[in-house]
Amino acid sequence: MKAFMDRDFLLSSETAKHLYHDYAAAQPIIDYHCHLDPKEIWEDRCFDNITQVWLGGDHYKWRLMRSAGVEERYITGDASDREKFQKWAETLGLAIGNPLYHWSHLELRNYFGYQGVLNGDTAEEVWQLCNEKLKTLSARKLILSSRVRALCTTDDPADSLEWHKKLAADESFPVKVLPSFRPDKALGIEKPDYLDYLSRLGDIGSFAALKEKLIERLDYFVSLGCRVSDHGMESVPYASATMDEVEAIFRKRLAGEIPTAWEQKQFKTALLLELGREYHRLGVVMQLHFGVIRDNSHRVFRALGPDAGIDSIGDQPSIKELAAFLGALDDTDELPRTILYSLNPNDNAALVTVMGAFQTGETVGKVQHGSAWWFNDHRSGMVDQLTTLAADGYLAGFVGMLTDSRSFLSYARHEYFRRILCELIGGWVENGEYPSDEKALRQIVEGICFGNAEQYFRLEMH
Amino acid sequence: MKAFMDRDFLLSSETAKHLYHDYAAAQPIIDYHCHLDPKEIWEDRCFDNITQVWLGGDHYKWRLMRSAGVEERYITGDASDREKFQKWAETLGLAIGNPLYHWSHLELRNYFGYQGVLNGDTAEEVWQLCNEKLKTLSARKLILSSRVRALCTTDDPADSLEWHKKLAADESFPVKVLPSFRPDKALGIEKPDYLDYLSRLGDIGSFAALKEKLIERLDYFVSLGCRVSDHGMESVPYASATMDEVEAIFRKRLAGEIPTAWEQKQFKTALLLELGREYHRLGVVMQLHFGVIRDNSHRVFRALGPDAGIDSIGDQPSIKELAAFLGALDDTDELPRTILYSLNPNDNAALVTVMGAFQTGETVGKVQHGSAWWFNDHRSGMVDQLTTLAADGYLAGFVGMLTDSRSFLSYARHEYFRRILCELIGGWVENGEYPSDEKALRQIVEGICFGNAEQYFRLEMH
Amino acid sequence: MKAFMDRDFLLSSETAKHLYHDYAAAQPIIDYHCHLDPKEIWEDRCFDNITQVWLGGDHYKWRLMRSAGVEERYITGDASDREKFQKWAETLGLAIGNPLYHWSHLELRNYFGYQGVLNGDTAEEVWQLCNEKLKTLSARKLILSSRVRALCTTDDPADSLEWHKKLAADESFPVKVLPSFRPDKALGIEKPDYLDYLSRLGDIGSFAALKEKLIERLDYFVSLGCRVSDHGMESVPYASATMDEVEAIFRKRLAGEIPTAWEQKQFKTALLLELGREYHRLGVVMQLHFGVIRDNSHRVFRALGPDAGIDSIGDQPSIKELAAFLGALDDTDELPRTILYSLNPNDNAALVTVMGAFQTGETVGKVQHGSAWWFNDHRSGMVDQLTTLAADGYLAGFVGMLTDSRSFLSYARHEYFRRILCELIGGWVENGEYPSDEKALRQIVEGICFGNAEQYFRLEMH
Repeated sequence: MKAFMDRDFLLSSETAKHLYHDYAAAQPIIDYHCHLDPKEIWEDRCFDNITQVWLGGDHYKWRLMRSAGVEERYITGDASDREKFQKWAETLGLAIGNPLYHWSHLELRNYFGYQGVLNGDTAEEVWQLCNEKLKTLSARKLILSSRVRALCTTDDPADSLEWHKKLAADESFPVKVLPSFRPDKALGIEKPDYLDYLSRLGDIGSFAALKEKLIERLDYFVSLGCRVSDHGMESVPYASATMDEVEAIFRKRLAGEIPTAWEQKQFKTALLLELGREYHRLGVVMQLHFGVIRDNSHRVFRALGPDAGIDSIGDQPSIKELAAFLGALDDTDELPRTILYSLNPNDNAALVTVMGAFQTGETVGKVQHGSAWWFNDHRSGMVDQLTTLAADGYLAGFVGMLTDSRSFLSYARHEYFRRILCELIGGWVENGEYPSDEKALRQIVEGICFGNAEQYFRLEMH
Repeated sequence: MKAFMDRDFLLSSETAKHLYHDYAAAQPIIDYHCHLDPKEIWEDRCFDNITQVWLGGDHYKWRLMRSAGVEERYITGDASDREKFQKWAETLGLAIGNPLYHWSHLELRNYFGYQGVLNGDTAEEVWQLCNEKLKTLSARKLILSSRVRALCTTDDPADSLEWHKKLAADESFPVKVLPSFRPDKALGIEKPDYLDYLSRLGDIGSFAALKEKLIERLDYFVSLGCRVSDHGMESVPYASATMDEVEAIFRKRLAGEIPTAWEQKQFKTALLLELGREYHRLGVVMQLHFGVIRDNSHRVFRALGPDAGIDSIGDQPSIKELAAFLGALDDTDELPRTILYSLNPNDNAALVTVMGAFQTGETVGKVQHGSAWWFNDHRSGMVDQLTTLAADGYLAGFVGMLTDSRSFLSYARHEYFRRILCELIGGWVENGEYPSDEKALRQIVEGICFGNAEQYFRLEMH
Repeated sequence: MKAFMDRDFLLSSETAKHLYHDYAAAQPIIDYHCHLDPKEIWEDRCFDNITQVWLGGDHYKWRLMRSAGVEERYITGDASDREKFQKWAETLGLAIGNPLYHWSHLELRNYFGYQGVLNGDTAEEVWQLCNEKLKTLSARKLILSSRVRALCTTDDPADSLEWHKKLAADESFPVKVLPSFRPDKALGIEKPDYLDYLSRLGDIGSFAALKEKLIERLDYFVSLGCRVSDHGMESVPYASATMDEVEAIFRKRLAGEIPTAWEQKQFKTALLLELGREYHRLGVVMQLHFGVIRDNSHRVFRALGPDAGIDSIGDQPSIKELAAFLGALDDTDELPRTILYSLNPNDNAALVTVMGAFQTGETVGKVQHGSAWWFNDHRSGMVDQLTTLAADGYLAGFVGMLTDSRSFLSYARHEYFRRILCELIGGWVENGEYPSDEKALRQIVEGICFGNAEQYFRLEMH
């Protein structure tokens, strides 16, 4: 029996251990997609206790506690932080097979030096230890000690990016904190508050004006180092329309009317295509996230708002429209570097094969299959993503892991990913499926952990 | 090489063996979903020969024999029972990788004491041995020797439940034989014989009257110990309608007209929502089974009727409507404890994440992902269900296995499930992914095998 | 650590090694679905260099090179054959986890005697070695040395089959080279060049005339040994129509108008049903290939035409229509032996269960699940196909592997399949899941490798 989560956690062969300890572990981190608050980084936020860090906004943990039958008052309600921590410890203690079990214990080991097991019995001990240790930690210290070289936050086009500017000017903090362009609200024409949002952007009287304003903002983002955009949607839309039709749809919305579902799709397609061409022009990577159903429980949504642990995987067929959308950009050779993420793991094989149809000699892995994400961010989800990418695409060109997280402790997920990657590759080598070629293996492992992202996002670290 | 299906069948590590032999194997059985005939239990049915038990109504075996090229006369036709058994033995002998191979041999070991291998050559020996042993067996003896504490049959609302009443009154038989409420026929408004069915329920002149009658029957079922309802459908419907619209649809049907597909969906949604609220009121668990296409071969259906081995997995996207349906009950906090089963294993991840959106502190695992079912009731199907539930939900709260069977021998499937469960959990422990914590492991394993179901179905055994 | 791709490549247990080396490896090959050019076989084509053989028309390799960022001029452009080979070697060298890595090295071992590793550093050595060896090789020599007994090419109904006739008459070449009937163009009523195609068939003035002409051609194909037909489509259509409606749709097309999407489906359903009945009458196997999206990049399509590495897996739900289509033929007991292939691996479980609904005593495995295909033709794809077929169908009756290839070297894929098959079966035996029954195991392995196909396609080899 292997010891619980020791130095060789998830590493079963000599080659896997060698690849992880000698190559992967030493690589710095580029976290090209996260939800950290740049203000908290600027202000170098500190935390009073572990409940604040762990349960403050982590809907992954909220879901798990609800699934374990914990009452809401101990999750998002008015129970004390110590009480909440107790319930969390009891929940986690039996959460066998759940990635939160591993993430949490990696965080306890890496940031708090706790080598034990967290459960109801040890909660008090861990509470004391973590809170003591937190006195010496802060946002920036956590980022630096994780060897993060660059991180890309998620920002609305209307955002002033003031904190990014301050951080860029602060030579004492050597980490690139870059804005990402996420115009979901500008695309959300069906939303009741869409006109309010438009007014945040400025005086927008037409689709053309909207497009111009977004391009202006994108240029501004790029001037502050933005390398990547992000779009979240239920599925990638594709419905063609003339510019006259799109303008008419937009006028309808300006007049207070909600366009039909088909018109919404036409509008979104048109705007996404315009943005895609700009991303291509500016060398900004386009991320497309889909396969999600948001806010399933209206009851909880009324109480807590979005990101409350009530989203799920969706199963609408999406590949054909996605292929048509990419094809429309590819047709004029204006497809930007693109990363595709479906929340539904069933899409993996189809996605990787669609990617293959749009690769060009422009760069290694121009179209990427995003790392196993959100509900798939566990061992079998990662193995499936990596194996499928390897079998139907080109694993060696993969840009690797991201945290997608709101927490400064989540860099442990990069370690989790790297262990799983090395176990997989090491297993292939040990099984005689790939030669024990030190040079090639090092290139592949270090590339996926760091170098490929550095090149793909044009971050020029060295 | 491990011996064929010996004491440690499917158990490869010491921890797996320990968990199975010391905890799982000893647990009694709650078979909360089966298709046993309560009359046969009351009458304590005996069997003349093994063909009656094994091939009489088992469409799993029929399918396998047809796939092996066996003529229909040896399956459901006029061949002798001995001839049919020979064909079955020859078919099974080469059915490598099929769960029927394991189920059949577990049954031979557990109920008949046969430790060998069944194939064409050994058919005569097994035929003699089983038939001899069957002289000493009966429905009740098989149930008792399987250590079943409670079983839930599947019953139409119009059923008198006379056999359940007799069984409840029979103090000599200590097993709870409880009715389950399965109103599929009351929902089947598109069926040609729907009006005939309504007349079985009584004088039903309106949707309101139908609803009232079903609630009356449900109350009656509950008075006889019913803890669980069941709904089988191609996919979970969600189409909203006013009560006036639903009444109009129902009147249309009473007048002999078949409503449109959309109207059918409106009717079914409305009735399911009404029933869901009643289940919530009464503490009855709601089971939803979907992802099925029934009776694909009309040729066979004409000859043999339903349940003839001609059903299949369906692949209609169903998650969004399912989420909307659950959300409609959740909106007023009237979602009952619910178990979701899709026959399509592709739905596993999406289902588990939808569940997570509707969990509450009301109970552990309020919304459950049903055990790998029917065509998924094999090793890789079970491992996938358990792994997905663990990764995106809370495995420790799982209510575990059911037989879904018409046979008194099928309890061997609980053993199959328990071995697979312990192998999985044992593997995690051996691999350092979960601590070797005796107390926690015992709680998890015994809970999934028995305790969770006892609590979830409120069966108060102790 | 196992040596890289040695004699026991992919074989980890003693039973797996025994089954492969003693049974599987010795079996001849029936390649019942390929895209070899019969003219090249008749003319016994030779090759100047390895780039011609490997990169001339192999869109698998083109995709991989594009994914690795290779410029198009080194793929399909005007770079020299040596330059292209260099880029291919560099690409392949890092293609860890990709089946092309294994296929290519199996081909290097089996046909060129090269035991090393191909990458950028060894490219020159391999280039010299292969080109030298190619002087002694030819199409026929490659087929014979692969122990191919029969191969089925892919042919249009309008094809004269002159090369098949010549090959059949050539007693010096003992391999059956049989035509397959692939009338995709006759079904492609939506295509702009449909009327041109019809004129190739003859003077076709009605649907009835089209049907008659196709049956005439099918009879001709059968007279030359055709055993199998093939249909490629996005999804299997099912939309019923009267013959009058179908004739009207066809007249519309003859008049130059493109029928609506629904009419197209009605036409295709009607023609496929007519053909299916003829296949049944003549004992011709019907292959249905679906789950594909073709020619995603119009930009590349304009430059290179079809089969340029720009296809992908599709995800349209297809099972219900497929079941209805099969059911329509089954209804009158005119379903031919049928092989179902979806390119989307998500369909595996549903497909195997649909098959089960239409099996009859007519033959073992009347409806077959086709071997893991194209983008699934890798280890995990094959294991998934085999495991699903075993669990929900009857693996022992499987007709096994095909190459689906345009290359004379691709028979190595049969070896790849056989190793994976033996590893899987051997693993089950070693794990005590199936008895170590020499007779049964030999029957199963040899059947899947050769005997089942021989019987299923009625090739009477002995």
